[in-house]
Amino acid sequence: MKNTIFVLREDSPKYKQIYEQFKYFIERGDILPNDQLPSIRQLADSLQVSRNTTLMAYEQLVAEGYIRGEGRKGYFVNKIEIVLFQDTFIQPHKNHTETVAPVKINFRAGAVDQTNFPLKIWRRLANQVLTLQESFQYGEPFGEVYLREQIAAYLFQSRGVKTDPNAIIIGSSTQQMLIHLGKVLKDDNAGIIIEDPGYDGAREAFRFHHFTFETLPVYETGADFSKLEYFRARLIYVTPSHQSPMGVSMSIQERLKIINWAKSRQGFIIEDDYDSEFRYTQQPFPALASIDSTRVIYLGNFSKSFLPGIRLSYMVLPQLLLNQYKNQFFHFENTTSLLSQLTMAKFMEEGEWIRHIKRMRLVYKRKIQCLVSELKKHFKQNISIIGEQSGLYVLVKVHLNRSEKWLIERASIYGVKVYPTSIYFIKNHSTEAIIKLGFSNLTSDEIQEGVKLLKEAWV
Amino acid sequence: MKNTIFVLREDSPKYKQIYEQFKYFIERGDILPNDQLPSIRQLADSLQVSRNTTLMAYEQLVAEGYIRGEGRKGYFVNKIEIVLFQDTFIQPHKNHTETVAPVKINFRAGAVDQTNFPLKIWRRLANQVLTLQESFQYGEPFGEVYLREQIAAYLFQSRGVKTDPNAIIIGSSTQQMLIHLGKVLKDDNAGIIIEDPGYDGAREAFRFHHFTFETLPVYETGADFSKLEYFRARLIYVTPSHQSPMGVSMSIQERLKIINWAKSRQGFIIEDDYDSEFRYTQQPFPALASIDSTRVIYLGNFSKSFLPGIRLSYMVLPQLLLNQYKNQFFHFENTTSLLSQLTMAKFMEEGEWIRHIKRMRLVYKRKIQCLVSELKKHFKQNISIIGEQSGLYVLVKVHLNRSEKWLIERASIYGVKVYPTSIYFIKNHSTEAIIKLGFSNLTSDEIQEGVKLLKEAWV
Repeated sequence: MKNTIFVLREDSPKYKQIYEQFKYFIERGDILPNDQLPSIRQLADSLQVSRNTTLMAYEQLVAEGYIRGEGRKGYFVNKIEIVLFQDTFIQPHKNHTETVAPVKINFRAGAVDQTNFPLKIWRRLANQVLTLQESFQYGEPFGEVYLREQIAAYLFQSRGVKTDPNAIIIGSSTQQMLIHLGKVLKDDNAGIIIEDPGYDGAREAFRFHHFTFETLPVYETGADFSKLEYFRARLIYVTPSHQSPMGVSMSIQERLKIINWAKSRQGFIIEDDYDSEFRYTQQPFPALASIDSTRVIYLGNFSKSFLPGIRLSYMVLPQLLLNQYKNQFFHFENTTSLLSQLTMAKFMEEGEWIRHIKRMRLVYKRKIQCLVSELKKHFKQNISIIGEQSGLYVLVKVHLNRSEKWLIERASIYGVKVYPTSIYFIKNHSTEAIIKLGFSNLTSDEIQEGVKLLKEAWV
Repeated sequence: MKNTIFVLREDSPKYKQIYEQFKYFIERGDILPNDQLPSIRQLADSLQVSRNTTLMAYEQLVAEGYIRGEGRKGYFVNKIEIVLFQDTFIQPHKNHTETVAPVKINFRAGAVDQTNFPLKIWRRLANQVLTLQESFQYGEPFGEVYLREQIAAYLFQSRGVKTDPNAIIIGSSTQQMLIHLGKVLKDDNAGIIIEDPGYDGAREAFRFHHFTFETLPVYETGADFSKLEYFRARLIYVTPSHQSPMGVSMSIQERLKIINWAKSRQGFIIEDDYDSEFRYTQQPFPALASIDSTRVIYLGNFSKSFLPGIRLSYMVLPQLLLNQYKNQFFHFENTTSLLSQLTMAKFMEEGEWIRHIKRMRLVYKRKIQCLVSELKKHFKQNISIIGEQSGLYVLVKVHLNRSEKWLIERASIYGVKVYPTSIYFIKNHSTEAIIKLGFSNLTSDEIQEGVKLLKEAWV
């Protein structure tokens, strides 16, 4: 097997990416029949992923017949017909003489800062919850009222959203809630308008219910709202506070425009407020649901601001949908851990949640300022930075006439992992490559070193 | 407002039942316009439910216009047209002079024994998990491989099921997994065969995807497998180890028959092995998936044997479905807490899981023996006991020519909460009332007192 370069994104399961890239290598003939693949341990070490991840990729390849396991000897490539296939995956670097470098700095956006996690407090509350009688029973189908009351108070205080705990539904993740919500919305809606570029995970949840798509183009300056009146659908999924991935926030004029649009069409807006806590230059903008909640379905989560692995999200349903939704899901058990729900409710009630958000806002503000100033210092007018006011990542538009693929692969040779944005785009592709840099779990030193290495790699 | 008797089942959200019964009272005219309802606190106390539960019921009634809140004065009934409506809910007792008695003994099946929970060990492991770097990231889409490896080892050891961790999918609950699975199975199956009586929660998950139903009649002696060849569908959902709710186990002949049926039709069997750990008279029977896994989708969970609130379940997919399933759900985040997954994996790896199951089997065996002997002592030939070999509840067929409703309401007057089984039946109704008695979180003394009170109430 020749040396090949892997490029792992944060936005898709890693084992799938490894599997897809091997498929690509094998189909292209870059790896030949009977070539031995690296061992699970070798590959895991060189890609800095877990051995479980590489094992899963290999097993998928075995299942599909691309490779075979020969016991302790390892994995070998099977003979297959070489076929021309659509080039939808990231291609490996053509120059096979370069080797895979270990990842020194990983600009991933899917992890949270570990050093500032309120470990002791969380442990204390989780341990308390384990002694409660209600922890040994089934929970409420739409989530514990105790947590819903805390969320209602928080939403009013921090997002201006007035809601009854009764209108809040607790779920595991944005995607899981969109699958449930989609079931109800599909009755009256064949299609949905989504942002382009936009969050690919939401797209997949709508695809689950076979919604047809119309797209709202989004640019660095904001979305093209002049399109609104021409859409056929009367259902729209948007990220108003911090557009995913372009980072822009809707102005109040835009907010009113989209609310009036939904009201005049008797449609609904799905407002995904996924990381609104982290706005560094001003106070977070008010949510659409705070302006007029009759036609807004508000989604929030604890994945960005607390822990992604806790799997805790929520939505606020407008009165018009509440009964329909509850009738549909009365008979379904909640998918979220009762223990996590009760622990989070206590955490919020004791004021720890607000304290945590405030602390993390400062921590992340320092990090983003460091990242932005380093980028400006090293790259000057060779790049534009998008979305430096909020969130847990910035986008970098690179004016060097290089492709996204080239930039990612060059960075990986220098031991820096950066992420693509092309997966978010549907039709509205950017003419220049845009790279995504997360910073939440990097120190200032790591950020400085990472940017320095990127400079060496790219310019 | 006259005195009315509430009957709360364990199988449906309590607030829904309260809401439905009030709706019933109001529609029947049992409660008149401008009557004041009990306060949230009063009702909660008298029904022994949380105030959240009664609040939710009242808010639902307010939302639908049945009642109105008048601030601190309380809740009052609105004027509505009295309509004749289908009598699908449990009716209140006609004699309104009897009052609601507080619940002394609750034979619910949805809670686990709290006194034998391995609190210290679980805390220690959960606290360890919180210090791991991987706990601060997103988890794997199909569940952590660490846990899947532990489950694979356990399934082989205790259920005879040989599986690759790669074929195991971690989910939040049986219902959540059935929604995902149903999405894949619906492509090739318009209909599904379900047990009658059978688990209502599974029925709802299949209804989510608009499967049509055919029913396999189940009796105390087992299912009528002679029907198999006449069904149109080639997909069946069964509970072979401990039929829910009838408690029977399939014989090896029946197991082979259903496996051969699925193979000859190229169909699939969904085997819900929900509480197979608790068989008291023999070793648990081998799973269908241990005999031939090519056409069996195996479902297991930790709700009965560990904690329902942890929301941790799994399924083993046959190779024929694995790629299709993974392609469908590659882009979806797992819905289960990463922290719970890692803690459970450690718990299993340290041998604590097997120890816990063994301990609980003894604990529950003592409880079920106590319940059965008390029932026999007090009721003699007035009842038949169904399903005393396994599980966390028994069914009692009452030969007293009384309706299920009467038995439940009479019991509630004596402060004993017992549960209906009629919700599990579709067409194959029993001629005599069958009552469900759970015992998992009751002491021997409570069981003895409960049965004594039941005798007074019923005979």
